[in-house]
Amino acid sequence: MIPLGRVAILGTGQIGTMVGMALRAAPDHAVAGVAVWDRDPAAMEACLRRAGSDRLLKGPEEALDSDLIILATPVAQIVGLVRELGPRLAPGQLLVDTGSSKLEVVRAMQRSVPEKAGAVGGHPLCGSSEPGPWSADPALLKGATFVLCPVRADPLALGTARRLVETLGSIALELDAGEHDRLLARSSHLPHLVAAALAEMSGDVPTRALFSSGLRGAVRLARSDPAMVASFVRANLEEVRAASRELSWQLDRLLMAADAGEEQLVAELERARLRARQVGVN
Amino acid sequence: MIPLGRVAILGTGQIGTMVGMALRAAPDHAVAGVAVWDRDPAAMEACLRRAGSDRLLKGPEEALDSDLIILATPVAQIVGLVRELGPRLAPGQLLVDTGSSKLEVVRAMQRSVPEKAGAVGGHPLCGSSEPGPWSADPALLKGATFVLCPVRADPLALGTARRLVETLGSIALELDAGEHDRLLARSSHLPHLVAAALAEMSGDVPTRALFSSGLRGAVRLARSDPAMVASFVRANLEEVRAASRELSWQLDRLLMAADAGEEQLVAELERARLRARQVGVN
Repeated sequence: MIPLGRVAILGTGQIGTMVGMALRAAPDHAVAGVAVWDRDPAAMEACLRRAGSDRLLKGPEEALDSDLIILATPVAQIVGLVRELGPRLAPGQLLVDTGSSKLEVVRAMQRSVPEKAGAVGGHPLCGSSEPGPWSADPALLKGATFVLCPVRADPLALGTARRLVETLGSIALELDAGEHDRLLARSSHLPHLVAAALAEMSGDVPTRALFSSGLRGAVRLARSDPAMVASFVRANLEEVRAASRELSWQLDRLLMAADAGEEQLVAELERARLRARQVGVN
Repeated sequence: MIPLGRVAILGTGQIGTMVGMALRAAPDHAVAGVAVWDRDPAAMEACLRRAGSDRLLKGPEEALDSDLIILATPVAQIVGLVRELGPRLAPGQLLVDTGSSKLEVVRAMQRSVPEKAGAVGGHPLCGSSEPGPWSADPALLKGATFVLCPVRADPLALGTARRLVETLGSIALELDAGEHDRLLARSSHLPHLVAAALAEMSGDVPTRALFSSGLRGAVRLARSDPAMVASFVRANLEEVRAASRELSWQLDRLLMAADAGEEQLVAELERARLRARQVGVN
């Protein structure tokens, strides 16, 4: 495999640290060195202890001598870093991010990264419900889907991004950035809000006795880290809002079917059951 | 323990068969005999094979010589059976049901069962996602919550119903019938529809790769038996509709908090997380 060269990771939260650990555990020559930076010195220190690191950076701009720069900060900061570092990238350098929403990041990359340098939007679908470098576990990257969103037609950049994903042990899934945001709003961001809403509605249940195991599954996502959920919901707010409207509409449809009769509702529920099977729910 | 006497179970689906199996496994003298009936001869035959039975009834009216009559048919049929059998109950006899919505049943009991006889609404919160006598497992009753809804102030009837619940190995939880329906709409019936709606919305997800294990939990209820879900949703439709409106309102509140800022949304999600912990979700 062609080596990835010198890698810089900006942002050493759970994902950044996990990626750093996986890259440092990669076979010889795959990676020529891993430099890390975080605006929080404690997070950088924690990443260093967990992943080890060849170099601690004093600021994001020190990443500019790396072959591959991975932006693993919260989405809001990713866009700022793209604007700051993008215009200074040279031919052969690649910028990849790990943010949970992609359209805004990919658009910033289109505007800020010169055509001669490379940029690809990325989103690894893994991570535990606890944030921070101490909960980083590179095993979570193994077999996980790592979405790659092309910034422009650039087979070289996409090829290098795919090599990164392979090195991490993840499985690349190429998706348009807007499509990624639309799908993630429906498969992840809205379900987190729904779980929170259902949990809130069950707040006056006199006893946990009324909750079966199946129902606990429906609100389990409400136990996720609030800062993490707030971050990805706000970064994809318009798609989440659209998904919420669609949920209301789907519920109204089911209630109308219930009004119409047993058979109509059963037919709708049969269809939903088929869909659940299609996405691998068992 | 005072024995329950002769028991008749009308409706030998999963719950009826499960109750029959548990009663026939009860210690000597707790139950003087179990008679069963179902309008579907195949279901009655299956119950007989699983639970054994002291007597097969030719029709519901043959249950009238029992001390305890348990109505375990779908809710729509329970109300009909209450109207048919209720007025013919004698002092000392007790009528209990196992339907998933309670207000309509309890009101029918108030109207049809004479004061000298006893009636109590019941709802065992257990059962697997597959319906029918063949999936009946009396182990599911052990430790399960069995809601009891008083029909009128009648300590004798409630005491006998509690003895039934104890004999089954379940834990009695006394609730007003309307309160039961309001809570169950929020903790069970609506979440089933939400899971179906989310499954339907994920139908165009190009790959199951976008679904994490947490998200699979959110739509797992969509795999439940459609006929069973349709039956309990339609039996409690007005409360489910009210709960659906409340969910829309809660989601709007969360989206408004997201508009207002990171801190506001985090505060809302923190509160929901606390509620989730309170109902025992981990």
